[in-house]
Amino acid sequence: MTSSTPRPTAPAAGAGRRDAEATKAAIVRAARHLLARHAHADITLKAVAERAGVSAPLVLKYFGNKDALFARIMSFEADAAAVLDAPLEDLGRHMVQHLLTSQAEEGADPLLRIVFAPLHREHGYVLRANFRTQVVRRLGERLTGPDAGLRAELAVGMLLGLGVMYGIARGPHLRATAIAEITDRYAPAVQACLTPG
Amino acid sequence: MTSSTPRPTAPAAGAGRRDAEATKAAIVRAARHLLARHAHADITLKAVAERAGVSAPLVLKYFGNKDALFARIMSFEADAAAVLDAPLEDLGRHMVQHLLTSQAEEGADPLLRIVFAPLHREHGYVLRANFRTQVVRRLGERLTGPDAGLRAELAVGMLLGLGVMYGIARGPHLRATAIAEITDRYAPAVQACLTPG
Repeated sequence: MTSSTPRPTAPAAGAGRRDAEATKAAIVRAARHLLARHAHADITLKAVAERAGVSAPLVLKYFGNKDALFARIMSFEADAAAVLDAPLEDLGRHMVQHLLTSQAEEGADPLLRIVFAPLHREHGYVLRANFRTQVVRRLGERLTGPDAGLRAELAVGMLLGLGVMYGIARGPHLRATAIAEITDRYAPAVQACLTPG
Repeated sequence: MTSSTPRPTAPAAGAGRRDAEATKAAIVRAARHLLARHAHADITLKAVAERAGVSAPLVLKYFGNKDALFARIMSFEADAAAVLDAPLEDLGRHMVQHLLTSQAEEGADPLLRIVFAPLHREHGYVLRANFRTQVVRRLGERLTGPDAGLRAELAVGMLLGLGVMYGIARGPHLRATAIAEITDRYAPAVQACLTPG
Protein backbone atom coordinates (compact mmCIF):
# COMPACT_ATOMS: atom_id res chain seq x y z
CA MET A 1 0.00 0.00 0.00
CA THR A 2 1.25 3.45 -0.87
CA SER A 3 0.42 6.75 0.72
CA SER A 4 -1.58 7.70 -2.39
CA THR A 5 -4.27 5.12 -1.54
CA PRO A 6 -7.19 7.34 -0.64
CA ARG A 7 -8.80 5.11 1.95
CA PRO A 8 -6.66 2.87 4.20
CA THR A 9 -8.53 -0.39 3.62
CA ALA A 10 -6.95 -3.83 3.60
CA PRO A 11 -6.30 -5.24 0.09
CA ALA A 12 -8.89 -7.98 0.58
CA ALA A 13 -11.61 -5.45 1.44
CA GLY A 14 -10.59 -3.37 -1.59
CA ALA A 15 -10.86 -6.38 -3.84
CA GLY A 16 -14.24 -7.24 -2.30
CA ARG A 17 -15.51 -3.74 -2.95
CA ARG A 18 -14.32 -3.92 -6.54
CA ASP A 19 -16.05 -7.27 -6.98
CA ALA A 20 -19.24 -5.83 -5.54
CA GLU A 21 -19.05 -2.84 -7.89
CA ALA A 22 -18.43 -5.15 -10.86
CA THR A 23 -21.37 -7.33 -9.88
CA LYS A 24 -23.68 -4.33 -9.45
CA ALA A 25 -22.58 -3.03 -12.85
CA ALA A 26 -23.31 -6.44 -14.42
CA ILE A 27 -26.78 -6.43 -12.86
CA VAL A 28 -27.48 -2.91 -14.14
CA ARG A 29 -26.28 -3.90 -17.63
CA ALA A 30 -28.49 -7.00 -17.60
CA ALA A 31 -31.54 -5.00 -16.49
CA ARG A 32 -30.92 -2.40 -19.21
CA HIS A 33 -30.56 -5.09 -21.84
CA LEU A 34 -33.92 -6.57 -20.88
CA LEU A 35 -35.52 -3.13 -20.67
CA ALA A 36 -34.66 -2.61 -24.35
CA ARG A 37 -36.47 -5.79 -25.35
CA HIS A 38 -39.34 -6.44 -22.98
CA ALA A 39 -42.11 -4.50 -21.32
CA HIS A 40 -41.32 -3.55 -17.75
CA ALA A 41 -44.09 -5.82 -16.41
CA ASP A 42 -42.61 -8.86 -18.20
CA ILE A 43 -39.12 -8.55 -16.73
CA THR A 44 -38.48 -10.70 -13.67
CA LEU A 45 -35.68 -10.40 -11.12
CA LYS A 46 -34.83 -13.99 -11.98
CA ALA A 47 -34.29 -13.08 -15.64
CA VAL A 48 -32.08 -10.15 -14.65
CA ALA A 49 -30.06 -12.38 -12.32
CA GLU A 50 -29.66 -15.08 -14.96
CA ARG A 51 -28.46 -12.65 -17.58
CA ALA A 52 -26.03 -11.06 -15.10
CA GLY A 53 -24.73 -14.51 -14.12
CA VAL A 54 -25.61 -14.10 -10.44
CA SER A 55 -28.29 -15.40 -8.10
CA ALA A 56 -31.62 -13.64 -7.59
CA PRO A 57 -30.90 -13.20 -3.84
CA LEU A 58 -27.71 -11.34 -4.74
CA VAL A 59 -29.74 -8.92 -6.87
CA LEU A 60 -32.03 -8.37 -3.90
CA LYS A 61 -29.05 -7.86 -1.60
CA TYR A 62 -27.64 -5.09 -3.79
CA PHE A 63 -30.84 -3.39 -4.97
CA GLY A 64 -33.54 -4.27 -2.44
CA ASN A 65 -36.33 -5.07 -4.89
CA LYS A 66 -37.30 -4.86 -8.54
CA ASP A 67 -38.76 -1.37 -8.19
CA ALA A 68 -35.55 -0.05 -6.68
CA LEU A 69 -33.46 -1.68 -9.40
CA PHE A 70 -35.68 -0.18 -12.08
CA ALA A 71 -35.68 3.24 -10.45
CA ARG A 72 -31.91 3.06 -10.79
CA ILE A 73 -31.87 2.10 -14.46
CA MET A 74 -34.65 4.55 -15.33
CA SER A 75 -32.63 7.40 -13.86
CA PHE A 76 -30.34 9.40 -16.13
CA GLU A 77 -28.62 11.29 -13.28
CA ALA A 78 -25.25 9.55 -13.43
CA ASP A 79 -25.21 9.36 -17.22
CA ALA A 80 -26.20 13.00 -17.64
CA ALA A 81 -23.41 14.03 -15.29
CA ALA A 82 -20.91 12.21 -17.51
CA VAL A 83 -22.42 13.35 -20.84
CA LEU A 84 -22.46 17.00 -19.72
CA ASP A 85 -19.09 16.99 -17.96
CA ALA A 86 -17.27 19.61 -20.05
CA PRO A 87 -17.10 23.41 -20.35
CA LEU A 88 -19.83 24.82 -22.55
CA GLU A 89 -17.46 25.89 -25.32
CA ASP A 90 -16.26 22.30 -25.76
CA LEU A 91 -19.46 20.51 -24.78
CA GLY A 92 -20.52 19.49 -28.30
CA ARG A 93 -17.27 17.60 -28.84
CA HIS A 94 -17.40 16.05 -25.40
CA MET A 95 -21.01 14.84 -25.81
CA VAL A 96 -20.32 13.20 -29.17
CA GLN A 97 -17.05 11.66 -28.04
CA HIS A 98 -18.50 10.37 -24.79
CA LEU A 99 -21.45 8.77 -26.57
CA LEU A 100 -19.32 7.07 -29.20
CA THR A 101 -16.76 5.88 -26.67
CA SER A 102 -19.48 4.42 -24.44
CA GLN A 103 -21.03 2.64 -27.42
CA ALA A 104 -17.78 1.38 -28.90
CA GLU A 105 -16.03 0.35 -25.68
CA GLU A 106 -18.87 -0.67 -23.40
CA GLY A 107 -21.58 -1.52 -25.92
CA ALA A 108 -23.79 0.87 -23.96
CA ASP A 109 -25.24 4.26 -24.74
CA PRO A 110 -25.74 6.73 -21.89
CA LEU A 111 -29.05 8.11 -23.20
CA LEU A 112 -30.48 5.69 -25.74
CA ARG A 113 -32.80 3.84 -23.36
CA ILE A 114 -35.26 6.73 -23.74
CA VAL A 115 -36.25 5.26 -27.13
CA PHE A 116 -37.79 2.25 -25.40
CA ALA A 117 -40.26 4.37 -23.42
CA PRO A 118 -43.22 3.15 -25.53
CA LEU A 119 -42.51 -0.39 -24.31
CA HIS A 120 -43.13 0.38 -20.68
CA ARG A 121 -46.58 1.94 -20.47
CA GLU A 122 -46.85 3.85 -17.17
CA HIS A 123 -43.13 3.36 -16.53
CA GLY A 124 -42.51 5.03 -19.86
CA TYR A 125 -43.78 8.26 -18.31
CA VAL A 126 -41.17 7.97 -15.58
CA LEU A 127 -38.46 7.39 -18.16
CA ARG A 128 -39.60 10.41 -20.21
CA ALA A 129 -39.92 12.66 -17.16
CA ASN A 130 -36.45 11.65 -15.93
CA PHE A 131 -34.98 12.22 -19.37
CA ARG A 132 -36.48 15.67 -19.75
CA THR A 133 -35.55 16.78 -16.24
CA GLN A 134 -32.19 15.13 -15.72
CA VAL A 135 -30.74 15.48 -19.22
CA VAL A 136 -32.46 18.08 -21.37
CA ARG A 137 -33.45 20.65 -18.75
CA ARG A 138 -30.09 20.33 -17.06
CA LEU A 139 -28.38 21.09 -20.37
CA GLY A 140 -30.80 23.91 -21.15
CA GLU A 141 -30.02 25.60 -17.84
CA ARG A 142 -26.39 25.93 -18.88
CA LEU A 143 -27.17 27.65 -22.18
CA THR A 144 -27.39 31.40 -22.61
CA GLY A 145 -29.30 33.41 -25.18
CA PRO A 146 -32.78 32.98 -26.59
CA ASP A 147 -34.62 29.64 -26.94
CA ALA A 148 -32.24 27.77 -24.66
CA GLY A 149 -34.81 25.04 -23.99
CA LEU A 150 -35.43 24.42 -27.68
CA ARG A 151 -31.71 24.46 -28.49
CA ALA A 152 -31.04 21.93 -25.73
CA GLU A 153 -33.70 19.63 -27.20
CA LEU A 154 -32.20 19.93 -30.69
CA ALA A 155 -28.67 19.22 -29.41
CA VAL A 156 -29.79 16.17 -27.44
CA GLY A 157 -31.82 15.06 -30.44
CA MET A 158 -28.70 15.09 -32.62
CA LEU A 159 -26.90 13.03 -30.01
CA LEU A 160 -29.72 10.50 -29.74
CA GLY A 161 -29.80 10.11 -33.52
CA LEU A 162 -26.10 9.35 -33.66
CA GLY A 163 -26.66 6.75 -30.95
CA VAL A 164 -29.50 5.14 -32.92
CA MET A 165 -27.50 5.07 -36.14
CA TYR A 166 -24.41 3.67 -34.43
CA GLY A 167 -25.93 1.34 -31.85
CA ILE A 168 -29.26 0.18 -33.29
CA ALA A 169 -29.19 0.63 -37.07
CA ARG A 170 -25.46 -0.17 -36.87
CA GLY A 171 -24.43 1.96 -39.82
CA PRO A 172 -21.44 0.18 -41.36
CA HIS A 173 -19.66 3.38 -42.40
CA LEU A 174 -19.96 4.91 -38.93
CA ARG A 175 -18.71 1.73 -37.31
CA ALA A 176 -15.69 1.65 -39.60
CA THR A 177 -14.73 5.27 -38.87
CA ALA A 178 -12.49 6.42 -36.02
CA ILE A 179 -14.30 8.11 -33.15
CA ALA A 180 -12.11 11.20 -33.52
CA GLU A 181 -13.16 11.61 -37.15
CA ILE A 182 -16.86 11.16 -36.46
CA THR A 183 -16.51 13.70 -33.65
CA ASP A 184 -14.83 16.20 -35.98
CA ARG A 185 -17.68 15.86 -38.44
CA TYR A 186 -20.68 15.72 -36.10
CA ALA A 187 -19.77 17.83 -33.08
CA PRO A 188 -19.88 21.24 -34.83
CA ALA A 189 -23.61 20.82 -35.51
CA VAL A 190 -24.25 19.94 -31.86
CA GLN A 191 -22.10 22.84 -30.70
CA ALA A 192 -24.00 25.21 -32.98
CA CYS A 193 -27.16 24.38 -31.02
CA LEU A 194 -25.37 25.04 -27.72
CA THR A 195 -23.52 28.25 -28.63
CA PRO A 196 -25.01 29.59 -31.89
CA GLY A 197 -23.36 32.27 -33.98
CA MET B 1 -68.23 13.60 -62.42
CA THR B 2 -65.85 15.99 -64.13
CA SER B 3 -63.41 15.30 -66.91
CA SER B 4 -60.55 15.67 -64.44
CA THR B 5 -61.47 12.40 -62.73
CA PRO B 6 -58.55 10.17 -63.70
CA ARG B 7 -60.38 6.87 -63.86
CA PRO B 8 -64.01 6.71 -65.01
CA THR B 9 -65.34 4.59 -62.15
CA ALA B 10 -68.82 4.87 -60.65
CA PRO B 11 -68.94 6.94 -57.44
CA ALA B 12 -69.81 3.88 -55.35
CA ALA B 13 -66.76 1.97 -56.55
CA GLY B 14 -64.58 5.02 -55.87
CA ALA B 15 -65.94 5.25 -52.35
CA GLY B 16 -65.36 1.53 -51.85
CA ARG B 17 -61.77 1.85 -52.98
CA ARG B 18 -61.23 4.78 -50.64
CA ASP B 19 -62.74 2.76 -47.78
CA ALA B 20 -60.45 -0.16 -48.58
CA GLU B 21 -57.41 2.12 -48.62
CA ALA B 22 -58.45 3.70 -45.32
CA THR B 23 -58.94 0.26 -43.77
CA LYS B 24 -55.57 -0.96 -45.02
CA ALA B 25 -53.93 2.17 -43.63
CA ALA B 26 -55.63 1.59 -40.25
CA ILE B 27 -54.33 -1.99 -40.20
CA VAL B 28 -50.79 -0.86 -41.04
CA ARG B 29 -50.96 1.81 -38.31
CA ALA B 30 -52.20 -0.74 -35.78
CA ALA B 31 -49.45 -3.21 -36.68
CA ARG B 32 -46.80 -0.48 -36.40
CA HIS B 33 -48.14 0.60 -33.02
CA LEU B 34 -47.86 -2.96 -31.71
CA LEU B 35 -44.44 -3.40 -33.30
CA ALA B 36 -43.18 -0.48 -31.18
CA ARG B 37 -44.33 -2.15 -27.96
CA HIS B 38 -44.16 -5.91 -28.33
CA ALA B 39 -41.79 -8.50 -29.70
CA HIS B 40 -42.73 -9.68 -33.17
CA ALA B 41 -43.50 -13.19 -31.88
CA ASP B 42 -46.00 -11.84 -29.34
CA ILE B 43 -48.12 -9.90 -31.83
CA THR B 44 -51.20 -11.73 -33.08
CA LEU B 45 -53.32 -10.93 -36.11
CA LYS B 46 -56.25 -10.74 -33.69
CA ALA B 47 -54.53 -7.98 -31.71
CA VAL B 48 -53.77 -6.06 -34.91
CA ALA B 49 -57.40 -6.43 -36.05
CA GLU B 50 -58.77 -5.31 -32.66
CA ARG B 51 -56.57 -2.24 -32.57
CA ALA B 52 -57.53 -1.35 -36.15
CA GLY B 53 -61.21 -1.84 -35.34
CA VAL B 54 -61.73 -4.51 -37.99
CA SER B 55 -62.15 -8.28 -38.04
CA ALA B 56 -59.22 -10.68 -38.27
CA PRO B 57 -60.57 -12.16 -41.54
CA LEU B 58 -60.51 -8.68 -43.06
CA VAL B 59 -56.81 -8.38 -42.16
CA LEU B 60 -56.25 -11.71 -43.89
CA LYS B 61 -58.24 -10.58 -46.92
CA TYR B 62 -56.06 -7.50 -47.38
CA PHE B 63 -52.65 -8.84 -46.39
CA GLY B 64 -52.78 -12.63 -46.79
CA ASN B 65 -51.08 -13.59 -43.54
CA LYS B 66 -49.11 -12.20 -40.63
CA ASP B 67 -45.76 -12.60 -42.38
CA ALA B 68 -46.96 -10.63 -45.40
CA LEU B 69 -48.36 -7.88 -43.17
CA PHE B 70 -45.09 -7.66 -41.28
CA ALA B 71 -43.02 -7.70 -44.44
CA ARG B 72 -45.03 -4.64 -45.43
CA ILE B 73 -44.50 -2.74 -42.17
CA MET B 74 -40.83 -3.75 -41.95
CA SER B 75 -40.21 -2.28 -45.38
CA PHE B 76 -39.06 1.33 -45.66
CA GLU B 77 -39.52 1.52 -49.47
CA ALA B 78 -42.58 3.73 -49.55
CA ASP B 79 -41.42 5.91 -46.64
CA ALA B 80 -37.94 6.35 -48.08
CA ALA B 81 -39.44 7.45 -51.38
CA ALA B 82 -41.39 10.16 -49.57
CA VAL B 83 -38.54 11.21 -47.25
CA LEU B 84 -36.08 11.51 -50.14
CA ASP B 85 -38.48 13.11 -52.64
CA ALA B 86 -36.68 16.41 -53.23
CA PRO B 87 -33.75 17.73 -55.26
CA LEU B 88 -30.42 17.25 -53.47
CA GLU B 89 -29.87 20.96 -52.87
CA ASP B 90 -33.13 21.20 -50.90
CA LEU B 91 -33.18 17.68 -49.48
CA GLY B 92 -32.17 18.61 -45.91
CA ARG B 93 -35.17 20.92 -45.57
CA HIS B 94 -37.50 18.43 -47.18
CA MET B 95 -36.38 15.56 -44.92
CA VAL B 96 -36.84 17.58 -41.72
CA GLN B 97 -40.15 19.05 -42.82
CA HIS B 98 -41.53 15.71 -43.98
CA LEU B 99 -40.58 14.02 -40.71
CA LEU B 100 -42.10 16.73 -38.53
CA THR B 101 -45.26 16.93 -40.62
CA SER B 102 -45.73 13.16 -40.46
CA GLN B 103 -45.25 13.20 -36.70
CA ALA B 104 -47.43 16.23 -36.01
CA GLU B 105 -50.26 15.45 -38.42
CA GLU B 106 -50.37 11.67 -38.53
CA GLY B 107 -48.71 10.78 -35.23
CA ALA B 108 -46.37 8.60 -37.27
CA ASP B 109 -42.70 8.84 -38.14
CA PRO B 110 -41.55 7.48 -41.49
CA LEU B 111 -38.26 6.04 -40.15
CA LEU B 112 -38.49 5.75 -36.39
CA ARG B 113 -39.53 2.10 -36.26
CA ILE B 114 -35.86 1.19 -36.78
CA VAL B 115 -35.28 1.99 -33.08
CA PHE B 116 -37.40 -1.01 -32.09
CA ALA B 117 -35.16 -3.49 -33.91
CA PRO B 118 -33.80 -4.90 -30.60
CA LEU B 119 -37.34 -6.00 -29.71
CA HIS B 120 -37.70 -8.35 -32.63
CA ARG B 121 -34.75 -10.72 -32.47
CA GLU B 122 -34.30 -12.31 -35.90
CA HIS B 123 -36.86 -9.94 -37.40
CA GLY B 124 -34.72 -7.10 -36.12
CA TYR B 125 -32.10 -8.12 -38.67
CA VAL B 126 -34.65 -7.74 -41.45
CA LEU B 127 -35.64 -4.32 -40.15
CA ARG B 128 -31.98 -3.22 -39.98
CA ALA B 129 -31.13 -4.61 -43.41
CA ASN B 130 -34.17 -2.91 -44.96
CA PHE B 131 -33.31 0.36 -43.26
CA ARG B 132 -29.72 0.34 -44.45
CA THR B 133 -30.58 -0.68 -48.00
CA GLN B 134 -33.82 1.18 -48.62
CA VAL B 135 -33.08 4.42 -46.75
CA VAL B 136 -29.39 5.01 -46.05
CA ARG B 137 -27.81 3.43 -49.11
CA ARG B 138 -30.43 4.98 -51.36
CA LEU B 139 -29.57 8.39 -49.95
CA GLY B 140 -25.83 7.72 -50.16
CA GLU B 141 -26.11 6.87 -53.84
CA ARG B 142 -27.40 10.38 -54.54
CA LEU B 143 -24.49 12.11 -52.82
CA THR B 144 -21.32 13.19 -54.57
CA GLY B 145 -17.84 13.73 -53.16
CA PRO B 146 -15.86 11.74 -50.63
CA ASP B 147 -17.36 9.63 -47.81
CA ALA B 148 -20.85 9.68 -49.27
CA GLY B 149 -21.84 6.57 -47.29
CA LEU B 150 -20.71 8.04 -43.99
CA ARG B 151 -22.35 11.39 -44.71
CA ALA B 152 -25.63 9.65 -45.54
CA GLU B 153 -25.49 7.82 -42.19
CA LEU B 154 -24.84 11.07 -40.31
CA ALA B 155 -27.69 12.87 -42.09
CA VAL B 156 -30.15 10.06 -41.40
CA GLY B 157 -28.87 9.92 -37.81
CA MET B 158 -29.74 13.58 -37.33
CA LEU B 159 -33.19 12.94 -38.71
CA LEU B 160 -33.76 9.92 -36.46
CA GLY B 161 -32.70 11.92 -33.41
CA LEU B 162 -35.19 14.67 -34.18
CA GLY B 163 -37.86 11.98 -34.49
CA VAL B 164 -36.92 10.48 -31.10
CA MET B 165 -36.90 13.86 -29.39
CA TYR B 166 -40.22 14.90 -30.94
CA GLY B 167 -42.12 11.63 -30.96
CA ILE B 168 -40.75 9.57 -28.07
CA ALA B 169 -39.10 11.91 -25.56
CA ARG B 170 -41.77 14.47 -26.55
CA GLY B 171 -39.63 17.53 -25.96
CA PRO B 172 -42.05 20.25 -24.85
CA HIS B 173 -40.15 23.08 -26.55
CA LEU B 174 -40.03 21.25 -29.87
CA ARG B 175 -43.72 20.44 -29.69
CA ALA B 176 -44.55 24.07 -29.01
CA THR B 177 -42.52 25.36 -31.96
CA ALA B 178 -43.81 25.76 -35.52
CA ILE B 179 -42.55 23.16 -37.99
CA ALA B 180 -41.19 25.90 -40.25
CA GLU B 181 -39.05 27.29 -37.44
CA ILE B 182 -37.68 23.90 -36.39
CA THR B 183 -36.90 23.24 -40.03
CA ASP B 184 -35.03 26.55 -40.35
CA ARG B 185 -32.92 25.66 -37.33
CA TYR B 186 -32.27 21.97 -37.92
CA ALA B 187 -32.17 21.50 -41.70
CA PRO B 188 -28.86 23.32 -42.33
CA ALA B 189 -26.97 20.72 -40.27
CA VAL B 190 -28.61 17.89 -42.24
CA GLN B 191 -27.90 19.66 -45.52
CA ALA B 192 -24.25 20.14 -44.52
CA CYS B 193 -23.92 16.34 -44.40
CA LEU B 194 -25.51 16.01 -47.84
CA THR B 195 -23.69 18.82 -49.65
CA PRO B 196 -20.72 19.89 -47.51
CA GLY B 197 -18.75 23.05 -48.08
